[in-house]
Parts: sequence; structure tokens; C-alpha cells
Amino acid sequence: MSTPDIDNIIAAIRSVIHQKKEGPVSLHEPCFEGNERAYVKDCIDSTWVSYVGKYVDRFEDMLAGFTGVKKAVAVVNGTAALQIALQLAGVKANDEVLVPALTFVATANATAHCGAVPHFVDSEEKTLGMDPDKLKNYLKEIANLNDNGCTNKKTGRRIKAVIPMHTFGHPADLDPLTEVCREYKMEMIEDAAESLGSFYKGKHTGNWGKLSILSFNGNKTITTGGGGAIITNDEALAKLAKHLTSTAKIPHRWEYRHDYIGYNYRMPNINAALGCAQMEQLTGFLNKKRNLAERYSRAFRNVDGVKFFTEPPHAKSNYWLNCLLLDKADAEQRNKILEKTNDAGIMTRPVWTLLNKLNMFRDCPRMDLSCAEDLEVRIINIPSSASLTKS
Amino acid sequence: MSTPDIDNIIAAIRSVIHQKKEGPVSLHEPCFEGNERAYVKDCIDSTWVSYVGKYVDRFEDMLAGFTGVKKAVAVVNGTAALQIALQLAGVKANDEVLVPALTFVATANATAHCGAVPHFVDSEEKTLGMDPDKLKNYLKEIANLNDNGCTNKKTGRRIKAVIPMHTFGHPADLDPLTEVCREYKMEMIEDAAESLGSFYKGKHTGNWGKLSILSFNGNKTITTGGGGAIITNDEALAKLAKHLTSTAKIPHRWEYRHDYIGYNYRMPNINAALGCAQMEQLTGFLNKKRNLAERYSRAFRNVDGVKFFTEPPHAKSNYWLNCLLLDKADAEQRNKILEKTNDAGIMTRPVWTLLNKLNMFRDCPRMDLSCAEDLEVRIINIPSSASLTKS
Repeated sequence: MSTPDIDNIIAAIRSVIHQKKEGPVSLHEPCFEGNERAYVKDCIDSTWVSYVGKYVDRFEDMLAGFTGVKKAVAVVNGTAALQIALQLAGVKANDEVLVPALTFVATANATAHCGAVPHFVDSEEKTLGMDPDKLKNYLKEIANLNDNGCTNKKTGRRIKAVIPMHTFGHPADLDPLTEVCREYKMEMIEDAAESLGSFYKGKHTGNWGKLSILSFNGNKTITTGGGGAIITNDEALAKLAKHLTSTAKIPHRWEYRHDYIGYNYRMPNINAALGCAQMEQLTGFLNKKRNLAERYSRAFRNVDGVKFFTEPPHAKSNYWLNCLLLDKADAEQRNKILEKTNDAGIMTRPVWTLLNKLNMFRDCPRMDLSCAEDLEVRIINIPSSASLTKS
Repeated sequence: MSTPDIDNIIAAIRSVIHQKKEGPVSLHEPCFEGNERAYVKDCIDSTWVSYVGKYVDRFEDMLAGFTGVKKAVAVVNGTAALQIALQLAGVKANDEVLVPALTFVATANATAHCGAVPHFVDSEEKTLGMDPDKLKNYLKEIANLNDNGCTNKKTGRRIKAVIPMHTFGHPADLDPLTEVCREYKMEMIEDAAESLGSFYKGKHTGNWGKLSILSFNGNKTITTGGGGAIITNDEALAKLAKHLTSTAKIPHRWEYRHDYIGYNYRMPNINAALGCAQMEQLTGFLNKKRNLAERYSRAFRNVDGVKFFTEPPHAKSNYWLNCLLLDKADAEQRNKILEKTNDAGIMTRPVWTLLNKLNMFRDCPRMDLSCAEDLEVRIINIPSSASLTKS
């Protein structure tokens, strides 16, 4: 292995992508080539742009149909979805929630929004997600287990839930993680914000959590402008999620009564209209993105010092955000590569700063994070839009 | 005074409104006769439908320009705006916040979302908003004042803030309320969710609070599908509001670092596109709504047992939601009127159930609420859409 030649990296990326327009190549931009304009216009014409309307119901049905969960509840974004999912899984103030150190800040923010404390877990290189074996060994050491669940021996706080996150769309190893949750009486909430279209052992991600969440932010595989969803196979929880996210109003012809401290986290109908049009194209987007990933994989086969990350065993990934892994010896080249690629008009980025390093989470409990620390300095994301695929 | 004749009420409403389409007359529906479709299409064509884009900046500038505040920060909805405004005003968990008992549940929910406790205040019939004299006398009795602010003698909790809400768009009596806040060292946050276009002593509502909030829900004077804004004359707070509502990311060419437990409360660009088109028509909407209110006022002059509520002294109201006040002796007729008008295809509704009566707020502190209790059984809202105005 030798130091990566940055020109070779740039050449490999350029050999794969088909840039339709001027200017820098984005990391991920949406593609609106279906019924987006027609559905949004229809929504405006109907005047039902807000919290009631046919597109919300239809979008929720399309999401449930595609992912194979029983129910989907559309909300304003993935962070809000995660906060409500945690609350419905029974997470209370001062509980701890096991969260990967290597994830977008929303996973820990939503935990904090419940008044709970994120407790950071290491990742494994195979999936870029939570390491089930390491988590199990760690809990053996720090957790007290009794009839009421699992307690952190050191802090005395209950550890109520675990949030595996499917990094860049690559499924975490859900079966052994489910086993750890069962053993330690913790609830699993899948943060599937990045993994719409990703399958684990033939089943769509989001089917393992008591509740799971999706995101439709502008940089995701499909977008609603801003948006997210809670998905679950528990119909009673789905009903409660809908109720809690729509101000907990008790249905009545005219009376205004509410029976919970609810939230205004509903997805507006106009955003759902965009979502319906996007869902119609999802299979096409996924095919294009897989094709792009395959081309990247071939193009990087002969570039020294970097490896194109491919889907984990047992997984079929959506390849939401394509990613290179620098060889360990070459991690110090990362910033130079980021600088030169961005200067060359090819947007690249490192992974998120590990959450335990952010000021507001610095004092949160955590296990040894050596794999996450290693990945943090080696990951580089490269352009991944479906529209970059050469035909 | 005699018992209201329901047929006369229905006839008075019918004499005023111009119903363009089939089916029941809504309480309030949006009107999309400007650049809505063009701006939304432009937004989709640009691919910038999500959290970055020119419409968000433009919408914020239009809001600031119209209301005369220095800065507006567009967010997902009014509830989220209120939560962040309270946090930025220094409200902490276990503080008390003075909130009208007669308001939409969001005012109290947002307080609870901060971990604070709503403390319910009575209204006055003149404005339908907080009664400043009654509040002042109440605080004289229950509050301890020292250098650090105001404490509730009974609960021992700090009373940090007051949220006057401008009911149906009618401004609360802001000058004496400001005086009470100054005397008791409490921050004022105006809940101007319903009062875009309403002025108090010649100045737009939202200019008295340390921060104030607007709502653009589908039933409001203008709509963005779902949406809200924080408005403030404090530019440093506005900057922090923008930062906190957009995940508190530190700007950097590629690095992902965050310096607060932030929120994903940004308004997507596609919703702001709708908002820009609506703002262009706001003056027209307000003129039509005022005209509708004037006609209602005339039509109800000769209907026994009810009074059409007109703007308070010193105020120019937007007449967001028009309202009848039943004579005290006739309050027991309310449900019959609601039933018959709705049966006749004219949507009407009572005011919100007083918040202190809802299960989740039942144990919150409150003053004597006799005026709010009286108003609760006497208010009936009647159709108010700008599009109902006869030309």
C-alpha cells in the first residue's frame, strides 16, 4: 500500500460521474423528474396544503407498503420522529439511551429532547454501525439487570433504549443487536433516516425497532423538502404517534379538547405531495444509485491507499452516500484530499465529528470508542446523487 | 334582550358571505390567487426545496419588513417558534410561565416542552386577552420579588415569563402588560400566532415581546402549509434563534460540528416559497377580512342576544377569526347554535376548552379565571376567510 495520489482519486470520481449541469458536483441532490409539480399544483388548487389532505395519507401508505411495516406516520423531520419514537418506547427524563458515537447529531439531540442522556457506543468497520459484540461485552461489565430492566452501575440511571443508525444507508447488524436488546431488556429504535431502500437479510430496515424512523431531508434518497416518518409494526403505537404528533386533539365536531401534552409535528400536505411523487420514483433512484456505487467500486479498485466501502454481509444497501475509507496509515491525508477535491469542484466531506467530542455531550457516558475514532479520520464521502449515473 | 333566534343568526351570516363553491362554508380557508404555483414550481426546478434557498431568506425579510421587527426566523410552526423563544428568553425547566387559560393548547404545550409549568391567567372581555390589572393584583398577592426576579410564594418556583396571546387577532392590552412585566422582572413573549396584520397603538403586534412568534398554519391569515416564525428586535437573539433551530451547526466548508443541543425546526424552502406568494397578497387579504368584519358588524346589529366582537380600543385587528359573543343569559344556547349552524352548512365553533380544564394541565397553578370561564361559554366563531367577502 502506498500514499493515495489525490489526482488518481479525482480521476476515479470523474470517470464515474455524469455531470449534467455547471458548477461543483454536489454530494447529494434531489431529482424531480416525476409528478412533483403536478401533485404540488393539485395540492395548492385544492387549498388543502396544511395538516389535512389526501397526500399525507397516501404518502404514509406508500411508505408502509415499501418498507413492509404495518404503519407509517409522516412528521416534520427525522429528529422529531426520533424524539416521539423514544417517548413512545418509554424513554423518560434521566434515562440513558445507547447511541452510536459515529452518527449525525440528531440521534443524540432527539435523546436529549426527551430529557434522556445519550450513552455512546462504538462502531464496527464491517457495517459502520454499532458493534453488537463490543456492546454486549460492555453491558456485561457496566449493567445491572433485574426485573425492571437494565441499570448503568456507574451512573445509577436506567438504560432504556438502543438506537442503531444505518450509516450512509448501510444496515447495522440487526440480529445480534436485537439479541443484546432482548437480553438486557432494552427497547430498540432504528434510526433509518439514511436507509430508505436498504434491506437486512431480505427485509427492509426499520422492521426491527419497536418503532423506527425515516428522514426526507433535501439530501436524502427521496425528499419532501423537510420531513420524516415514524414507522412501526405496532398499530396501537402508530395510532398514538399520530395523535401525539398532531396536538393530541380528541376528535369532535367542534370541541377543542386535548388529552396529552402533544406536539405539532405533522407533515403538511404540500410536503407529502412532493413525497408521493418521489416515492413513485424510488425504485428507479435506487437502481441508479446502485449502478453508481458499482462503477465507483470498479474505478477505485486500482487507486492506492483508499477502499470504496461496499454493502455489509447480509445487506442490500441503498448506497445513499458513497464513501471511501482511507488506509489507516494514510488518515493524515484526509484534509488534503478534502481540500483538493472540493477545490476541483467535486464536493466531498468527512464523516461527522464523533458526538462525544461535542461540548454539549462531552460528559455523557461512553464505552471505548477506538473503532469509531479510527473511522472518523478515514471516511470521505463522495458525490452520490442518482442523477450522476451515466446511462 | 331576548333569547337569540338561531334562524336570525344564520340569516345574518348568509347575508354577509359570498360562497364561491359547493359544500359547507369553512371557518377559514386559504386563498391562493397570486404567485403560489409559480414560486413553488421555481423552487422545485431549482432543486433547492429543503433547508437552504432564496425563498426562506426572502420570506424572513418580508415578515420583518411588514411587522417592523428587526429580524424574523422562519421555522416549522408556531409551537416550535414559541418553545425556542421561551428558551432564548431564559425559561428553564421548573420555571413557571404565565399563560392565558383562554388560548390554543400550543401556548401551554410549548411551555411544557421547555420543562416549564404553565400558570394560568384570566382574560378581559375588552380584548379577549390577558387582563393586566387582574394580573398585577394577583402578583401583588402571590409573588416574591427580589434581585433575581419573581418567585411564586406558594410553589417556590421562579416566574420567568409571560405570554400574552392575541386572541383571534385582537391585540391584548400590551402597554400595561409590559408594565407588569417590568415591575415583576419577567420576560414578555408575545404569542402573535393569530395576529399577523394586527396593530396595537399603530405598531404591529410582536414588537413588545423580547421575542414573539407568528403562525402560518393552513387556517391562518397567510399559510405556508405548516410554518411559523420567531420575530424579535434583538439581533443577537435572532442569530441564536436561527442557529438553534438549524441544528446549531458551526459553519465550516466540510466539517460537521455543533455547539448546542439544537433543533431541526427550519422551515423548508418550498414552504417559504408559498409564504412569499402569500405575503405579496397580505394587504389585500387584510382589507377583505376587515370588510367582511364590517359587514358582519352591521348584520348582527339587529340580532337579539348576540354581539359581534369588534377590535379593542387602541387596536387595529386583522379579524383573523370573527367571533360572536352570546349575552350572558343566553350562554346555554351555545351548543344549539353550534349544532344548527353546522347542520345548515355554516361552520362555526366554540372557543378552546380552557387549558386549566385539560387533564395534563389540571394541577398547574392558576388565578381566579372567572372572566375566561364566562367567555368560554359565550364565544362562537363564524366563517372568516378573505374569499368570503362580497365584492
